[in-house]
Amino acid sequence: MFIAMNRFTVKREQEQAFVEMWKTRDSFLDDVPGFKSFHLLRGPEMEENVIYATHTMWADESDFHNWVKSEAFKKAHQSQRPKPEMFSAPTKLEMFNSV
Amino acid sequence: MFIAMNRFTVKREQEQAFVEMWKTRDSFLDDVPGFKSFHLLRGPEMEENVIYATHTMWADESDFHNWVKSEAFKKAHQSQRPKPEMFSAPTKLEMFNSV
Repeated sequence: MFIAMNRFTVKREQEQAFVEMWKTRDSFLDDVPGFKSFHLLRGPEMEENVIYATHTMWADESDFHNWVKSEAFKKAHQSQRPKPEMFSAPTKLEMFNSV
Repeated sequence: MFIAMNRFTVKREQEQAFVEMWKTRDSFLDDVPGFKSFHLLRGPEMEENVIYATHTMWADESDFHNWVKSEAFKKAHQSQRPKPEMFSAPTKLEMFNSV
Protein backbone atom coordinates (compact mmCIF):
# COMPACT_ATOMS: atom_id res chain seq x y z
CA MET A 1 0.00 0.00 0.00
CA PHE A 2 1.25 3.48 -0.96
CA ILE A 3 0.18 6.91 0.31
CA ALA A 4 0.88 10.25 -1.34
CA MET A 5 0.32 13.30 0.85
CA ASN A 6 0.52 16.82 -0.46
CA ARG A 7 0.97 19.23 2.45
CA PHE A 8 -0.41 22.77 2.15
CA THR A 9 0.30 25.59 4.64
CA VAL A 10 -3.01 27.43 4.26
CA LYS A 11 -3.53 30.97 5.56
CA ARG A 12 -6.44 31.01 8.01
CA GLU A 13 -8.35 33.62 6.00
CA GLN A 14 -8.05 31.39 2.93
CA GLU A 15 -9.27 28.15 4.52
CA GLN A 16 -12.85 28.41 3.27
CA ALA A 17 -11.81 29.13 -0.32
CA PHE A 18 -9.23 26.32 -0.21
CA VAL A 19 -11.73 23.72 1.00
CA GLU A 20 -14.37 24.93 -1.45
CA MET A 21 -11.89 24.48 -4.30
CA TRP A 22 -11.36 20.80 -3.41
CA LYS A 23 -15.07 20.18 -2.95
CA THR A 24 -15.96 21.48 -6.38
CA ARG A 25 -13.00 19.85 -8.15
CA ASP A 26 -13.35 16.82 -10.35
CA SER A 27 -10.39 14.54 -9.57
CA PHE A 28 -11.06 11.94 -12.32
CA LEU A 29 -9.53 9.39 -9.93
CA ASP A 30 -12.25 6.76 -9.62
CA ASP A 31 -11.30 4.85 -12.77
CA VAL A 32 -7.52 5.10 -12.36
CA PRO A 33 -5.86 1.65 -11.92
CA GLY A 34 -4.64 1.05 -8.37
CA PHE A 35 -6.50 4.05 -6.90
CA LYS A 36 -7.95 3.24 -3.45
CA SER A 37 -9.15 6.43 -1.76
CA PHE A 38 -8.83 10.21 -1.60
CA HIS A 39 -9.32 12.40 1.48
CA LEU A 40 -8.75 16.07 2.09
CA LEU A 41 -7.39 16.33 5.64
CA ARG A 42 -7.25 19.24 8.08
CA GLY A 43 -4.20 18.86 10.31
CA PRO A 44 -1.97 20.80 12.71
CA GLU A 45 -2.98 24.40 13.47
CA MET A 46 -0.55 27.29 13.86
CA GLU A 47 -1.27 30.88 14.81
CA GLU A 48 -1.81 32.18 11.30
CA ASN A 49 -1.92 28.98 9.24
CA VAL A 50 -3.42 25.51 9.18
CA ILE A 51 -1.80 22.45 7.60
CA TYR A 52 -4.05 20.71 5.11
CA ALA A 53 -3.09 17.54 3.27
CA THR A 54 -4.48 15.64 0.36
CA HIS A 55 -4.22 11.98 1.29
CA THR A 56 -4.39 9.51 -1.60
CA MET A 57 -4.05 5.75 -1.12
CA TRP A 58 -2.84 3.46 -3.92
CA ALA A 59 -2.34 -0.27 -4.21
CA ASP A 60 1.26 0.30 -5.23
CA GLU A 61 3.76 3.16 -5.73
CA SER A 62 3.89 2.43 -9.48
CA ASP A 63 0.13 3.10 -9.74
CA PHE A 64 0.73 6.60 -8.40
CA HIS A 65 3.59 7.33 -10.83
CA ASN A 66 1.55 5.98 -13.76
CA TRP A 67 -1.30 8.28 -12.77
CA VAL A 68 1.02 11.34 -12.66
CA LYS A 69 1.95 10.61 -16.29
CA SER A 70 -1.67 10.02 -17.37
CA GLU A 71 -4.33 12.03 -19.21
CA ALA A 72 -6.57 11.79 -16.11
CA PHE A 73 -3.91 13.66 -14.12
CA LYS A 74 -3.64 16.39 -16.76
CA LYS A 75 -7.42 16.79 -16.85
CA ALA A 76 -7.73 17.02 -13.06
CA HIS A 77 -5.00 19.67 -12.86
CA GLN A 78 -6.31 21.78 -15.72
CA SER A 79 -9.65 22.56 -14.11
CA GLN A 80 -9.13 24.03 -10.63
CA ARG A 81 -5.72 24.98 -9.32
CA PRO A 82 -4.87 26.29 -5.85
CA LYS A 83 -3.97 29.99 -5.97
CA PRO A 84 -0.47 30.88 -4.63
CA GLU A 85 -1.96 33.58 -2.35
CA MET A 86 -3.71 30.85 -0.34
CA PHE A 87 -0.41 29.62 1.13
CA SER A 88 2.35 30.81 3.48
CA ALA A 89 4.84 28.14 2.39
CA PRO A 90 5.51 25.96 -0.65
CA THR A 91 3.39 22.85 -1.10
CA LYS A 92 5.30 19.70 -0.16
CA LEU A 93 4.70 16.22 -1.53
CA GLU A 94 5.51 13.33 0.82
CA MET A 95 5.35 9.71 -0.29
CA PHE A 96 5.01 6.69 2.01
CA ASN A 97 5.17 2.95 1.45
CA SER A 98 3.69 0.55 3.96
CA VAL A 99 6.30 -1.70 5.52
CA MET B 1 -12.59 9.87 9.40
CA PHE B 2 -9.59 10.70 11.60
CA ILE B 3 -5.90 9.88 11.08
CA ALA B 4 -3.16 9.95 13.72
CA MET B 5 0.39 9.91 12.37
CA ASN B 6 3.39 9.60 14.62
CA ARG B 7 6.51 10.75 12.73
CA PHE B 8 9.88 9.20 13.60
CA THR B 9 13.23 10.46 12.29
CA VAL B 10 15.06 7.11 12.23
CA LYS B 11 18.84 6.83 11.88
CA ARG B 12 19.67 4.69 8.84
CA GLU B 13 21.68 2.22 10.88
CA GLN B 14 18.67 1.75 13.17
CA GLU B 15 16.06 1.11 10.46
CA GLN B 16 16.11 -2.67 10.71
CA ALA B 17 15.76 -2.68 14.50
CA PHE B 18 13.00 -0.05 14.32
CA VAL B 19 10.94 -2.04 11.79
CA GLU B 20 11.51 -5.29 13.67
CA MET B 21 10.20 -3.67 16.84
CA TRP B 22 6.90 -2.78 15.14
CA LYS B 23 6.56 -6.19 13.52
CA THR B 24 6.91 -8.03 16.81
CA ARG B 25 4.76 -5.60 18.80
CA ASP B 26 1.23 -6.45 19.90
CA SER B 27 -0.86 -3.31 19.36
CA PHE B 28 -4.09 -4.61 20.99
CA LEU B 29 -5.95 -2.37 18.51
CA ASP B 30 -8.29 -4.79 16.76
CA ASP B 31 -11.02 -4.69 19.39
CA VAL B 32 -10.82 -0.97 20.13
CA PRO B 33 -14.07 0.89 19.22
CA GLY B 34 -13.70 3.07 16.12
CA PHE B 35 -10.36 1.59 15.07
CA LYS B 36 -10.11 1.16 11.28
CA SER B 37 -6.54 0.36 10.26
CA PHE B 38 -2.89 0.55 11.25
CA HIS B 39 0.10 0.86 8.90
CA LEU B 40 3.76 1.43 9.50
CA LEU B 41 4.93 3.73 6.68
CA ARG B 42 8.40 4.42 5.30
CA GLY B 43 8.54 7.96 3.95
CA PRO B 44 10.97 10.70 2.89
CA GLU B 45 14.67 9.80 2.92
CA MET B 46 17.44 12.11 4.03
CA GLU B 47 21.18 11.56 3.96
CA GLU B 48 21.48 10.00 7.40
CA ASN B 49 17.85 9.46 8.37
CA VAL B 50 14.56 8.14 7.04
CA ILE B 51 11.13 9.38 8.11
CA TYR B 52 8.86 6.60 9.30
CA ALA B 53 5.27 7.14 10.38
CA THR B 54 2.70 5.08 12.17
CA HIS B 55 -0.58 5.73 10.37
CA THR B 56 -3.74 4.86 12.30
CA MET B 57 -7.22 5.48 10.91
CA TRP B 58 -10.24 5.94 13.20
CA ALA B 59 -13.93 6.47 12.58
CA ASP B 60 -13.79 9.65 14.66
CA GLU B 61 -11.28 11.78 16.59
CA SER B 62 -13.04 10.91 19.88
CA ASP B 63 -12.31 7.19 19.27
CA PHE B 64 -8.59 8.00 19.17
CA HIS B 65 -8.68 10.05 22.38
CA ASN B 66 -10.70 7.34 24.16
CA TRP B 67 -8.10 4.78 23.10
CA VAL B 68 -5.23 6.93 24.47
CA LYS B 69 -6.99 6.86 27.88
CA SER B 70 -7.71 3.09 27.71
CA GLU B 71 -6.18 -0.03 29.24
CA ALA B 72 -5.47 -1.34 25.71
CA PHE B 73 -3.21 1.70 25.11
CA LYS B 74 -1.33 1.13 28.37
CA LYS B 75 -0.83 -2.55 27.52
CA ALA B 76 0.46 -1.82 24.01
CA HIS B 77 2.94 0.75 25.29
CA GLN B 78 4.24 -1.37 28.15
CA SER B 79 5.56 -4.15 25.96
CA GLN B 80 7.90 -2.73 23.32
CA ARG B 81 9.04 0.87 23.29
CA PRO B 82 11.23 2.60 20.69
CA LYS B 83 14.70 3.28 22.09
CA PRO B 84 15.79 6.97 22.08
CA GLU B 85 19.08 6.06 20.31
CA MET B 86 17.08 5.04 17.22
CA PHE B 87 16.17 8.66 16.42
CA SER B 88 17.84 11.91 15.36
CA ALA B 89 14.88 14.10 16.32
CA PRO B 90 11.94 13.99 18.69
CA THR B 91 8.90 11.94 17.65
CA LYS B 92 6.07 14.15 16.45
CA LEU B 93 2.35 13.32 16.58
CA GLU B 94 0.21 14.87 13.85
CA MET B 95 -3.58 14.56 13.83
CA PHE B 96 -5.81 15.00 10.79
CA ASN B 97 -9.58 15.14 10.32
CA SER B 98 -11.11 14.51 6.93
CA VAL B 99 -12.94 17.55 5.60
